[in-house]
Amino acid sequence: MKKIEIVQNILQANESIAGQNKRLLDKHKVFAINIMSSAGAGKTSLILQTIARLKDKLNTGVIEGDVASTLDAEKVKDEATAVVQVTTRYMPENCTLIANNVSYALKNLPLEDIDLLIIENVGNLICPSEFVLGEHRRVVISSLPEGDDKPIKYPMIFADADAVVINKIDFLPYVDFDIASFQKTLRGLNPEVKIFQVSCKTGEGIEEWCSWLRGEIKASRSLVK
Amino acid sequence: MKKIEIVQNILQANESIAGQNKRLLDKHKVFAINIMSSAGAGKTSLILQTIARLKDKLNTGVIEGDVASTLDAEKVKDEATAVVQVTTRYMPENCTLIANNVSYALKNLPLEDIDLLIIENVGNLICPSEFVLGEHRRVVISSLPEGDDKPIKYPMIFADADAVVINKIDFLPYVDFDIASFQKTLRGLNPEVKIFQVSCKTGEGIEEWCSWLRGEIKASRSLVK
Repeated sequence: MKKIEIVQNILQANESIAGQNKRLLDKHKVFAINIMSSAGAGKTSLILQTIARLKDKLNTGVIEGDVASTLDAEKVKDEATAVVQVTTRYMPENCTLIANNVSYALKNLPLEDIDLLIIENVGNLICPSEFVLGEHRRVVISSLPEGDDKPIKYPMIFADADAVVINKIDFLPYVDFDIASFQKTLRGLNPEVKIFQVSCKTGEGIEEWCSWLRGEIKASRSLVK
Repeated sequence: MKKIEIVQNILQANESIAGQNKRLLDKHKVFAINIMSSAGAGKTSLILQTIARLKDKLNTGVIEGDVASTLDAEKVKDEATAVVQVTTRYMPENCTLIANNVSYALKNLPLEDIDLLIIENVGNLICPSEFVLGEHRRVVISSLPEGDDKPIKYPMIFADADAVVINKIDFLPYVDFDIASFQKTLRGLNPEVKIFQVSCKTGEGIEEWCSWLRGEIKASRSLVK
């Protein structure tokens, strides 16, 4: 029981810091999304596509969470209004961003100049599901080459998502991925989830995804005083 | 510091149980490999190909580690000599198998009838790198659609592997994956690592992988009294 109590304490402390992050974001009218996926599903590609599409309308800040390397931050830095890198390798929780990482990053972002904050989580379908960061929406990317059974095998992260982006849709001719079956399993876990089919390579479906995101930002602004 | 001490204690306890597992395996002349990868890289497919190729020469047992579902165990059960499923969802460490899971599984496997034990870890490139299980060899699968930057982004798991299997090699015409660059980064982290290029779909490269595995088993038997 002692071990489980420790885990509970960590999660409670995390929620409290996440609440502080959210209040800070709301104060500055920054809308934040937490993008989660397995390694190599296309988080950075979706971020680059999203920034390119929304550039004229919104300023985007990015928090790049990685176990090691600044590869993704380098890819994003010329496109985003501001980028902060968080490297988790030597942290006790190295398999996910936690609210404390985001709290640190927010201190290093020009919040007054940002409309949308995209948090790119560490590539992992398990740990990030347990840690809220203060985000307004949770987004999971699942890519075709991973197979259509991921919601069955990693249910927690999918059950809790506001949106799921099925990426690499251009791989459909080459892989055995049943989109209808994937969607059915996903809706079984999470009936309200928004589902998008995109290819960050060809740009297919990106407009629909960005249009949803703009709608969510607009709706949130009318709620925030 | 308290948090880090707790983490250290967990890892030390894990190593001690892993040592017991290894002694039990050696006693029964069972050679064990721990297969790790991101979600959807092809662990189960490689296991099925390996069992099919070695069936006439070796009896294979499998420990299936999953966050949820028995999908993989069901796929493997008719092919392997014996399969034990370990579901980690409600465990404090749900993002990886730990030595204690394997200790439990070993009690439920007919070790006297098994030559090769394949442990399919939870799909994750981070947590499994920290937990030894009692295995004789550590194997990481990296698949082409994930991109060639994975050793840079998840160095710990690659630095510590005895073998890396590059899977889905049949995707080469459709993805931007530089095999030479991947291998160079990998050898920079881990000069001695064995690297295989395979397609679990077409069977390409499986013979070479299985031949290495047979060699390792043979060499290990001559060492075990």
